[in-house]
Amino acid sequence: MLEKIDLTKSLDKETYKTELKQLETELKRAQQSIREHNIPVILLFEGWSSAGKGTLIGKVVYPLDPRYFNVLSMNKLSEDSIMRPPLWTYWINTPSEGRITLFDKSWHRAGITMSEADRNKYFYDVNAFEEQLISGGTLIIKIFLHISAKEQKKRLKDTEANNATKWRVDDKDWEQNKNYDKYLVSLEQMINETNTAKSKWVIVEAEDKRYATVKTYKTIINKIQEEIKRRGTDNKATYEKTSIKPNEISILRSIDLSKKIENKDYKEKLAYYQNKISDLGYKMYAKRKSVVIVYEGWDAGGKGGNIKRLTEQIDPRGYEVIPIQAPTKEELAHHYLWRFWKFMPKDGHMAIFDRSWYGRVMVERIEGFCTEEDWMRSYKEINDMELHMANHGTIIFKFWMHINKDEQLLRFRQRQDDPLKQYKITDEDWRNREKWDAYEEAVDEMLFRTNTSSAPWTIIESVDKKYARIRTLAIVVKELEKRLK
Amino acid sequence: MLEKIDLTKSLDKETYKTELKQLETELKRAQQSIREHNIPVILLFEGWSSAGKGTLIGKVVYPLDPRYFNVLSMNKLSEDSIMRPPLWTYWINTPSEGRITLFDKSWHRAGITMSEADRNKYFYDVNAFEEQLISGGTLIIKIFLHISAKEQKKRLKDTEANNATKWRVDDKDWEQNKNYDKYLVSLEQMINETNTAKSKWVIVEAEDKRYATVKTYKTIINKIQEEIKRRGTDNKATYEKTSIKPNEISILRSIDLSKKIENKDYKEKLAYYQNKISDLGYKMYAKRKSVVIVYEGWDAGGKGGNIKRLTEQIDPRGYEVIPIQAPTKEELAHHYLWRFWKFMPKDGHMAIFDRSWYGRVMVERIEGFCTEEDWMRSYKEINDMELHMANHGTIIFKFWMHINKDEQLLRFRQRQDDPLKQYKITDEDWRNREKWDAYEEAVDEMLFRTNTSSAPWTIIESVDKKYARIRTLAIVVKELEKRLK
Repeated sequence: MLEKIDLTKSLDKETYKTELKQLETELKRAQQSIREHNIPVILLFEGWSSAGKGTLIGKVVYPLDPRYFNVLSMNKLSEDSIMRPPLWTYWINTPSEGRITLFDKSWHRAGITMSEADRNKYFYDVNAFEEQLISGGTLIIKIFLHISAKEQKKRLKDTEANNATKWRVDDKDWEQNKNYDKYLVSLEQMINETNTAKSKWVIVEAEDKRYATVKTYKTIINKIQEEIKRRGTDNKATYEKTSIKPNEISILRSIDLSKKIENKDYKEKLAYYQNKISDLGYKMYAKRKSVVIVYEGWDAGGKGGNIKRLTEQIDPRGYEVIPIQAPTKEELAHHYLWRFWKFMPKDGHMAIFDRSWYGRVMVERIEGFCTEEDWMRSYKEINDMELHMANHGTIIFKFWMHINKDEQLLRFRQRQDDPLKQYKITDEDWRNREKWDAYEEAVDEMLFRTNTSSAPWTIIESVDKKYARIRTLAIVVKELEKRLK
Repeated sequence: MLEKIDLTKSLDKETYKTELKQLETELKRAQQSIREHNIPVILLFEGWSSAGKGTLIGKVVYPLDPRYFNVLSMNKLSEDSIMRPPLWTYWINTPSEGRITLFDKSWHRAGITMSEADRNKYFYDVNAFEEQLISGGTLIIKIFLHISAKEQKKRLKDTEANNATKWRVDDKDWEQNKNYDKYLVSLEQMINETNTAKSKWVIVEAEDKRYATVKTYKTIINKIQEEIKRRGTDNKATYEKTSIKPNEISILRSIDLSKKIENKDYKEKLAYYQNKISDLGYKMYAKRKSVVIVYEGWDAGGKGGNIKRLTEQIDPRGYEVIPIQAPTKEELAHHYLWRFWKFMPKDGHMAIFDRSWYGRVMVERIEGFCTEEDWMRSYKEINDMELHMANHGTIIFKFWMHINKDEQLLRFRQRQDDPLKQYKITDEDWRNREKWDAYEEAVDEMLFRTNTSSAPWTIIESVDKKYARIRTLAIVVKELEKRLK
């Protein structure tokens, strides 16, 4: 593919000057329309060493209002990035509505050096990531700058010959040039495997810098104009409606909630498992494994007390509990998964979510905070996100704290009668309770659609709180023992 | 001081067990009252190697609700931290209202290894930082764990003797033990110089772990209770009212706004300075110097266009423009300076603020978004913050884009008539305009009180926008040339 590209295309100085002037005005206008339409835009630049990414980025931002773009160089990733799933860095840096983020090098290149099996998984994750962003309203423009081996060699020599720039060339650049043909295969593979219907690469012939600049400008302007046009017309649902009504085979209703534990047994087991999980915490750290635990469940289902018993004996430098509340304005201006990515743990650490991204298919679905299309699509998005974490080696637990309607009523009343616990019960809890049946249907569907092998759900019978605590502890301890062997 | 402390204090097992049980309940309640009163709490643990910081932190968090605290280990700072002023890491990690952040090691210790001159400056910054947080409503509890050289030696040996823990001891620990007396002097100095009336250290005798635990618990509980009591009574202003009425010597009114530049001259100078600033951008990066530029000014004063010309030729990977808007809910739950610290540039980078922390003494003052005490106090807080950055080596510019009332009216009308610029003008702009005199007084006072040698203000005559652009560019270029020599 790359080999067949005609690299002799060029532009004379006069044509260039005239065209560029016009294009700068158009790009400026395009940025304004992005802001008017609240579109987040990702502009990424990939390509050979010395293909001119830096210079081109400089040219592209020239007409832009600098208050509404960011340029991020991905040349050297920080420790914070390296110790997390590879897409984490990109997730947390996705632009909010109306802003443009330009990436100098992109998430694709990490795949090049992987084994075939890992690469296949990784490019699946990459495509899922882009699809998620696009479905959420982000415009992604992917530009690949292409030059020949001969041109690359010339540029590297020229850069080295100049005292002011020679520091820019390192061994890796020369190594790429010497093995140009090998790299060509890898880069073609990267482009092919991440060239999806919704997110295509644009190859820019970059031997003539004037030609490359004009083609890049035109590409960006066209993609933005197309996107704005598309928004005016295309509003069809793109999710798959399936015929399964999960409620007909209700998972929740089949749960035996009478399970109990005796107090003496509870105390012994609590001490036993808390001791185990404390040791496993250090082992996790030593082995640089990260853990994500999601707590969902009915209001008054016992999440808080359960989390407390789980963490009580773990070194507090090794875990963080993240209570999830309603999204802020800034969070609403991003993809709905963005606010959770911020909290994803570093290798060796544990993040415990008290409520989570599953709000999308429960409260947001039921209260109509997003469209049906949005929440239907999100089952796959969530599965893909969890898969990406699992591929990185993160161990994921998801607990549904289950009680029945009578037990909830009892607990609500107890809270109201106890001055120390009154703050825990609000009007919203009572309102949610009235929607029990709608929640039951949503939860059944959620459990059904997001119960994956890399991130399975466990329903915790929580009418007896002590039983529930031992159950979650035992599950976490057993799985960690297995995975940290 | 430390030498004279009686380290033989201890507690028998029975007393400990009984006391601790009671204290755990009290600490749990104290956490609840922190949440009720929306108090952010910082709990920091300093002390000798092997004094037991980690274990003690574990004990302290045991009764706490894990959803509302964080533990941060400051053992190894990330590159992001190292490349910024030393207090940056702590600023961005300050807790929001109702939350507790526990620091394992603190901001004080960086001073120990500095030269005397640097240390004096640094401890000034540290004290200013703590005073800022305390004035803003944060409770800071500083605990120092003290053990003798003999006890330290014993613990290091014991830890090394155990296969499971020996990795925790390194050369630095032994070095500290061998030079215990030298360290003692440094640590005493650190404690003395940061022991202020509003923020005192508590020395905890840590040879007997039971005694240390109980004393730490009691300290924390008492400090929280005192703070809550204090809030009920103490509401007196603590800022200094000075007798100078800055408006009598109005700075703004003395500015000659007739300054102009010819178009030909403008074009030449623009090209000249933009070329210079582009080179200086690379030099900044090579020399790892950071730059902060603050733009303030009248509405329609020409900030946007000025920023555009300043940045146009700089490598976009080296700077970021930060447009400041109304604070979010999360930002309001922190100290008002927190939201700006997030954007402070890494060494080698430039951050340009389109409006800034000076909103505190302009819009917040005039609209009553904070109390008079708050904004009066903030002149010193802002000066101290800028001083801390300057001490780190950051080069700071502050520009006031100045026009008069007639010119503003002209520009407002032009914006209204131009369909492409209408979005720039809002009802709020017209409302602000009505408060011109109040703003003039506030700005005069701001310029007067925050014009420091390390972060001076420049008033930019902006009726002629081109003149203003060349003026800011020239100032930045000249100063950078001087500082980057």
